[in-house]
Amino acid sequence: MGKVYLVGAGPGDPELLTLRAARLLKQANVVLHDALVSPEVLALIGDAQVIDVGKRCGTKLLSQQEINSLLIAYASRYEYVIRLKGGDPTIFGRAGEEIEALADAGIAYELVPGISSALAAASAAGISLTDRRFASSVVFTTAHRGLDSEATAWDRLVSSHSTLAIYMPGRSYSELARQLQDAGLSPQTPCAAVSHAGRPTQQVRWCDLSSLERAESLPPTILIVGECANPIHIAEHFIHGESLVDESQTETMARQV
Amino acid sequence: MGKVYLVGAGPGDPELLTLRAARLLKQANVVLHDALVSPEVLALIGDAQVIDVGKRCGTKLLSQQEINSLLIAYASRYEYVIRLKGGDPTIFGRAGEEIEALADAGIAYELVPGISSALAAASAAGISLTDRRFASSVVFTTAHRGLDSEATAWDRLVSSHSTLAIYMPGRSYSELARQLQDAGLSPQTPCAAVSHAGRPTQQVRWCDLSSLERAESLPPTILIVGECANPIHIAEHFIHGESLVDESQTETMARQV
Repeated sequence: MGKVYLVGAGPGDPELLTLRAARLLKQANVVLHDALVSPEVLALIGDAQVIDVGKRCGTKLLSQQEINSLLIAYASRYEYVIRLKGGDPTIFGRAGEEIEALADAGIAYELVPGISSALAAASAAGISLTDRRFASSVVFTTAHRGLDSEATAWDRLVSSHSTLAIYMPGRSYSELARQLQDAGLSPQTPCAAVSHAGRPTQQVRWCDLSSLERAESLPPTILIVGECANPIHIAEHFIHGESLVDESQTETMARQV
Repeated sequence: MGKVYLVGAGPGDPELLTLRAARLLKQANVVLHDALVSPEVLALIGDAQVIDVGKRCGTKLLSQQEINSLLIAYASRYEYVIRLKGGDPTIFGRAGEEIEALADAGIAYELVPGISSALAAASAAGISLTDRRFASSVVFTTAHRGLDSEATAWDRLVSSHSTLAIYMPGRSYSELARQLQDAGLSPQTPCAAVSHAGRPTQQVRWCDLSSLERAESLPPTILIVGECANPIHIAEHFIHGESLVDESQTETMARQV
């Protein structure tokens, strides 16, 4: 019997893999990966069989149950079965359901953390998410509303002394901006939209809630909302990491401060 | 003129460094590190001058202003100046103040994300922080009350559909448990205290809010509070990562479910 490793692939830049993830990709017999895992990360896989189990445009290639069954089947034949997930497996990664299925089947497993997209976005934009001058907490949440879940209860998440990092902000930023203002945030609350963090196509757009629709970006995007995302605190000449943003365009939008 | 790299060192296991962090530690001319960075990570540093600027038992070796001045002074003499921080630089890492000082001095800088302690704790305990069945968000916060900051406004952070990941929970878990219940959480809310995540001395203690004081652990500890920390969802035979918990003891405390 083999073991299933639920491994965080980070935001896309292969240099942001952990040493452990890189080593496991070399050792793997089979790798089942999501659509969000970048080609550059997949290129680090050794001789393993590589299976794309990801979703595209909302259409699932495989159901969660089919993925669970594949993991169990491969673990009975191979020593190193890698379940490779974009970002970190414990943050919006559906690791919970796979863990329960593996546990029920008596399969050994291990989680290997990864750089979650919000952390990559914050570093790429030079934003300290819990800068003690402006925030004492950060909320990782999503505007994505699954068929089986309630709408995001923004009024419970919004706080003047907390930063919001919003995964999957959706297509309509103006609707999101309205909801956040209805929940109590000021129209002048600073926002940064970081799309493709850790990829050559990375973009950072600065705005505030009143102009959030102007920051609409190609997914995947992380929206950082709160005073710590005020570009006043970020150097104008902020130097991006070479490996992170070789070809990026960074736009600084006009803000009323 | 050199460049300052604010680098996340992760939770302590050197295998949980990013490839980029490991490469920068080899290239470094000088490394200024916090107390939380493990000896195993420091062992990966190449020929650099290594300076401990950390705090111990609340006593600062150097003030934040002195650290800022050192970074600026070294960047004028060396090409690779590494500011190595436990976990991730943008989460409870005081990166914001260093970024402003570097920007004001015209020094180039770059942030390199790391595995934040809460992510390492979640993976080590097998907890999916945003398991969609129980949570749609996770709040990274702290019970630590700086001299210059207000008390944590738990009533704004507590939500039935959100997980809390509490950094620096402090010495009195019973006081913290009372505050969380006053803010609206049920005494039966599941909790996991993960201390020394990613270190050989790692411990995971399972309990609920009514018995939280029995989970008091040696710092650094991350407290995970919410239904996703219910051990019912975690396999009894959860297999910990070899490199993470070679010598760990995992205690499962009696819980009333």
